[in-house]
Amino acid sequence: MAVGLGAMPVMHPVKGFALGIASAGVKKAGRRDLVLMRCAEGSTVAGVFTQNAFCAAPVQLCKQRLGQPVRYLVTNTGNANAATGQPGLEAAQQVCQAVADSLGVALEQVLPFSTGVIGEPLPVGKITAALPAAIADLREDNWALAGEGIMTTDTLPKGASLQFEHEGETYSVTGISKGAGMIRPNMATMLGYVATDAKVAAPVLQALVKQAADLSFNRITIDGDTSTNDSFMLIATGQTGPAIEQAAGGLYQKLQEAVCAVAMQLAQAIVRDGEGATKFVTVQVEQGGNVQECLDVAYAVAHSPLIKTALFASDPNWGRIVAAVGYAGVPGLEQEKVNVFLNDVCIVRDGGRAVSYTEEQGAAVMQQAEILIRIQLGRGDCNETIWTTDLSHEYVRINAEYRT
Amino acid sequence: MAVGLGAMPVMHPVKGFALGIASAGVKKAGRRDLVLMRCAEGSTVAGVFTQNAFCAAPVQLCKQRLGQPVRYLVTNTGNANAATGQPGLEAAQQVCQAVADSLGVALEQVLPFSTGVIGEPLPVGKITAALPAAIADLREDNWALAGEGIMTTDTLPKGASLQFEHEGETYSVTGISKGAGMIRPNMATMLGYVATDAKVAAPVLQALVKQAADLSFNRITIDGDTSTNDSFMLIATGQTGPAIEQAAGGLYQKLQEAVCAVAMQLAQAIVRDGEGATKFVTVQVEQGGNVQECLDVAYAVAHSPLIKTALFASDPNWGRIVAAVGYAGVPGLEQEKVNVFLNDVCIVRDGGRAVSYTEEQGAAVMQQAEILIRIQLGRGDCNETIWTTDLSHEYVRINAEYRT
Repeated sequence: MAVGLGAMPVMHPVKGFALGIASAGVKKAGRRDLVLMRCAEGSTVAGVFTQNAFCAAPVQLCKQRLGQPVRYLVTNTGNANAATGQPGLEAAQQVCQAVADSLGVALEQVLPFSTGVIGEPLPVGKITAALPAAIADLREDNWALAGEGIMTTDTLPKGASLQFEHEGETYSVTGISKGAGMIRPNMATMLGYVATDAKVAAPVLQALVKQAADLSFNRITIDGDTSTNDSFMLIATGQTGPAIEQAAGGLYQKLQEAVCAVAMQLAQAIVRDGEGATKFVTVQVEQGGNVQECLDVAYAVAHSPLIKTALFASDPNWGRIVAAVGYAGVPGLEQEKVNVFLNDVCIVRDGGRAVSYTEEQGAAVMQQAEILIRIQLGRGDCNETIWTTDLSHEYVRINAEYRT
Repeated sequence: MAVGLGAMPVMHPVKGFALGIASAGVKKAGRRDLVLMRCAEGSTVAGVFTQNAFCAAPVQLCKQRLGQPVRYLVTNTGNANAATGQPGLEAAQQVCQAVADSLGVALEQVLPFSTGVIGEPLPVGKITAALPAAIADLREDNWALAGEGIMTTDTLPKGASLQFEHEGETYSVTGISKGAGMIRPNMATMLGYVATDAKVAAPVLQALVKQAADLSFNRITIDGDTSTNDSFMLIATGQTGPAIEQAAGGLYQKLQEAVCAVAMQLAQAIVRDGEGATKFVTVQVEQGGNVQECLDVAYAVAHSPLIKTALFASDPNWGRIVAAVGYAGVPGLEQEKVNVFLNDVCIVRDGGRAVSYTEEQGAAVMQQAEILIRIQLGRGDCNETIWTTDLSHEYVRINAEYRT
């Protein structure tokens, strides 16, 4: 039911970054559920991770290792290795150790990632048994299959890829993401990987991954449930061009633009493929006094089950929108200064139904698969935008049946 | 589909408090949708109201008038008179004026209440035309019908009634409530009225209504959507016993206990009749460092669509519970100190699956219609409890079809 999400685009290979896929049978036999990624020596790797206090074992290990030289990233689906305690940490270490031993690198040079059911023991043996196949499959032109290899309840793989030129060199920025439920990232989403062949100093790369996440993965929500495993990684293999030592200059600006654009496409792809989604909804809050109150209003609207079911029903029930604006907790909000638009149709003017508004206008917008809800608060000049989905019967069915 | 909610209990009349019901045809012809309540002269009236910034016109008028002597409360369903701007305020005034003129009291002695669709103009003429019938119907033994008269998407009327004795006198505390969706009260719920024949000074009554709301209506949530019209009123007609001038003494304590018990029953009845509810769920957070973090965890669990759909499916998917505990924003939460119980079954011990736990134990609890989710944070000795429901196909159907 993905909304406006087509086949994978052309995925430009990134020099110095190879991907290998295998079937370990973690949850289901025969499914591609293991993805190994190799970064060329000298790569820098940055990442942001969930702020969930129940963050998974692999997230805990990644946080410890980040900043050291990384050579491999190993990802399994079908099991989140979250809420698994000390045995979970040991299981993640065993997977990393198997990668390190097979490929002759140090344990600390391997980063683990997991996604799937929370609270089940990780089947380490199945994963290590499939490692040789993943290693044999390592290729730079393997992005599309890797996009499939990290899927769980996703209905389609998600990828984005851009190239830019600078002083005669061509640079690539390519990435994949996954996630369809338990999506309200609070640092990053449930697994996103973007690689570039540019050479970027580690602190610059870390600042860039944070900035890209804030503009993309940290601006989407499907069900308001922040995952235990959210990880967004940015890898720079250093194979092309001069070293970027500072967040400034023409090359940095082009790279920044490309990374943010790829991250944005990957984040929006997750929303488009949200569980049970029939609508892709942009919530834009304007004229706020500050960033936080804009986001508070946007998330109140995006998380309201009443608004989400009205979107599913294509019902322009704008009373539910103003109710959510009203309870978002904006101090001293004056309802008579609030305007609301559905796409270009003004439905609320000065806190009440716009005189020009007819139910037919609202209904026409709501029939569309992509809808913009624009809210003006009349308090300042701050704007924020987030993306979300509707709440459908299919969402309930998927999540009521997830483990059966 | 109400969970464990039976017929109205015996509703003890309250001396000095009469109720009259009529059909005004606000939204549907023939439906009882108008309730008039009369308080004896000398009554004190206290109330708490929604903190939604888009609070409805009647709520705005009630807030202005509270503290003055009140004689009548007039309630319509089928139209919330919210987000209606200045015309909405004028419409509410016109209804109050019609009551005042018909019954020979001042405009300021009438409090208006509305519930129903947001953003539609209030059909004043229909309401004033039905007023004579409501007036003719005013009786002290009319609580049960009044409970019906304030219903919207409720499937059953909700009432609670207690009597207590003090120094040879019998006191009654009787109340009704309504609400089934847009329920996450933030002061009080979408219409609750409790009356007593005790004589209570206005400041004491106002403190008591706040306390009762905090223990009851402010501890329930169905969909996390705070209504524009929430109002919880406490009326003391002063017909029985000595005046209570202070929040102390044996009589006050008995009254306080009865009011809080009635409010609690009314609040829980709203959850039991929650839209599409198939489960009545108590979320109890223990060992918190303070009230706020207990409530943050409890509401994170109660609002999680993933947990609510798992409850609907009777799936003991405890990973979703710990994920919600983890993202509730408790600073420095240590996952290895967290325990989770479903009723008496320990499912999570020290942050991971309890060794003693079997899926069969969890499944057996989840099959029940009333479920206790008990979470221990291992941080202190603060406990908080809230009540909520599951998220079913029926919830989506009701709210996708609400206006059709």
